[in-house]
Amino acid sequence: MTFRDRLLLSIVQKGHLCVGLDSRYDRIPNASSSIVDTVFSFNAQIVDATHDLAAAYKMNLSFYAGFGLEGLEALRKTSAYIKENYPDIPLLADGKRSEMGESVRMVKQELFDWLLFDCVMVTPWFGFDTARDYLDDPRHGVCVYVHDSNPSAVEFQDLELRDGRKVYEVVAERVANAWNSNGNVWVEGGATYPEQLRRIREIVGDEMPMLVAGIGPQGGTVASLRGLFGTDGNRLLVNSSRGIIFAGLGNNDYISEARKAAVKIRESIFSVK
Amino acid sequence: MTFRDRLLLSIVQKGHLCVGLDSRYDRIPNASSSIVDTVFSFNAQIVDATHDLAAAYKMNLSFYAGFGLEGLEALRKTSAYIKENYPDIPLLADGKRSEMGESVRMVKQELFDWLLFDCVMVTPWFGFDTARDYLDDPRHGVCVYVHDSNPSAVEFQDLELRDGRKVYEVVAERVANAWNSNGNVWVEGGATYPEQLRRIREIVGDEMPMLVAGIGPQGGTVASLRGLFGTDGNRLLVNSSRGIIFAGLGNNDYISEARKAAVKIRESIFSVK
Repeated sequence: MTFRDRLLLSIVQKGHLCVGLDSRYDRIPNASSSIVDTVFSFNAQIVDATHDLAAAYKMNLSFYAGFGLEGLEALRKTSAYIKENYPDIPLLADGKRSEMGESVRMVKQELFDWLLFDCVMVTPWFGFDTARDYLDDPRHGVCVYVHDSNPSAVEFQDLELRDGRKVYEVVAERVANAWNSNGNVWVEGGATYPEQLRRIREIVGDEMPMLVAGIGPQGGTVASLRGLFGTDGNRLLVNSSRGIIFAGLGNNDYISEARKAAVKIRESIFSVK
Repeated sequence: MTFRDRLLLSIVQKGHLCVGLDSRYDRIPNASSSIVDTVFSFNAQIVDATHDLAAAYKMNLSFYAGFGLEGLEALRKTSAYIKENYPDIPLLADGKRSEMGESVRMVKQELFDWLLFDCVMVTPWFGFDTARDYLDDPRHGVCVYVHDSNPSAVEFQDLELRDGRKVYEVVAERVANAWNSNGNVWVEGGATYPEQLRRIREIVGDEMPMLVAGIGPQGGTVASLRGLFGTDGNRLLVNSSRGIIFAGLGNNDYISEARKAAVKIRESIFSVK
């Protein structure tokens, strides 16, 4: 089964929520001195409590690699746990590892073979070479950061070109029309820039899956999702990380608080569909 | 001592060569079944054979992370070995880890605290937010990929803007005039695009250190380095990876072949100064 088919099926079955497991060890309640145990056990509980609500999980790799070998071991155990217990849920590697040629083969070994991810996320800065070597294997996806949610995302992404287009519009156009020859390339945009999100959907068309980040703590709202759902209303995935996994910080029952937050965000996404 | 001062002193003392330790386990001669031992021992020999020629070492992280925990342990041991035996030589983390805010703190823990690097390399795609959180600590550097050496680097980097400039020129201008408020930000360019290299040097001025990649197997020549050396002729660092460390593949004495290649490339750089 291709990555794209798995992702779309998962969205049809679960809805549009992607839960970001940015499980920073030193923020986890009741942490023990073992990083592996603390992070893995927290993640396993979060996953058990949200697996019926989450169409995908996304991990920002830095929150694991920041704690060295133990952090990465906790990440690997988390991926293995999800693969074993909820094998249909795609795992997205948010790591900005934008390599080319020989080093792409290395990134595949790192992210797909070792850490069990289904999709890599790359910046488009180096052009098509960054995506090319993923196209021969449609079981894995490539998600391109077309327009991010952070304040300075506009610094280069929104520069205006001679023909009147913005840089991110050209990226969206190239990804949709030149890069996606095997159906496994898709795009990311930031909820803090609703106008750009709409333009990305317009440019890539209604078929391509789209990931939106930046809802919640980063300032994006679900209102920005209107009109983005694509063909059959199932081409949109919306990530929330801290807003879910750390929703219950300071609360004894932080796992059920996380589930409550996931339910709420998932429903609020449906409300604008 | 700041990163910038260390780097410039190292260039004055050693010349312009940066040796790229892209030491892929499955290409190393006489490999044992232990990834840690094979990669670390190869690196230690290469470093011992080139430390008097190398102004810096650069590691592409994917060549280590591609071999999982053992690959990363070999990387950490290599960094520790260099820090212990040749503490003046700066270590550059070629990993494209372009994060923002909280996740930058994590990247610092990963690259500076755990893996002992002195400088992170980031894509400019997300704008100033990617560099901002490194500015408070000038003991560490941030090198920005302004124009890379790969064929598709031009796809977005060379798009022409309304005012006639190219995207990469705006990046160079912003890095030099807005991002580098604490002296620890510098720029990278690719030797396969000599015209763009000259423009980058023109825009950032003669003071800023500049890293050039893509000499050798990637098709760049030392002729492209003319005019890039900057103030006092010591603001240029030129990376070579495979062309040095694997120069002696198939040869019994591959370590002295690597040294010979380093000597040759180092001298060829001086020849265009």
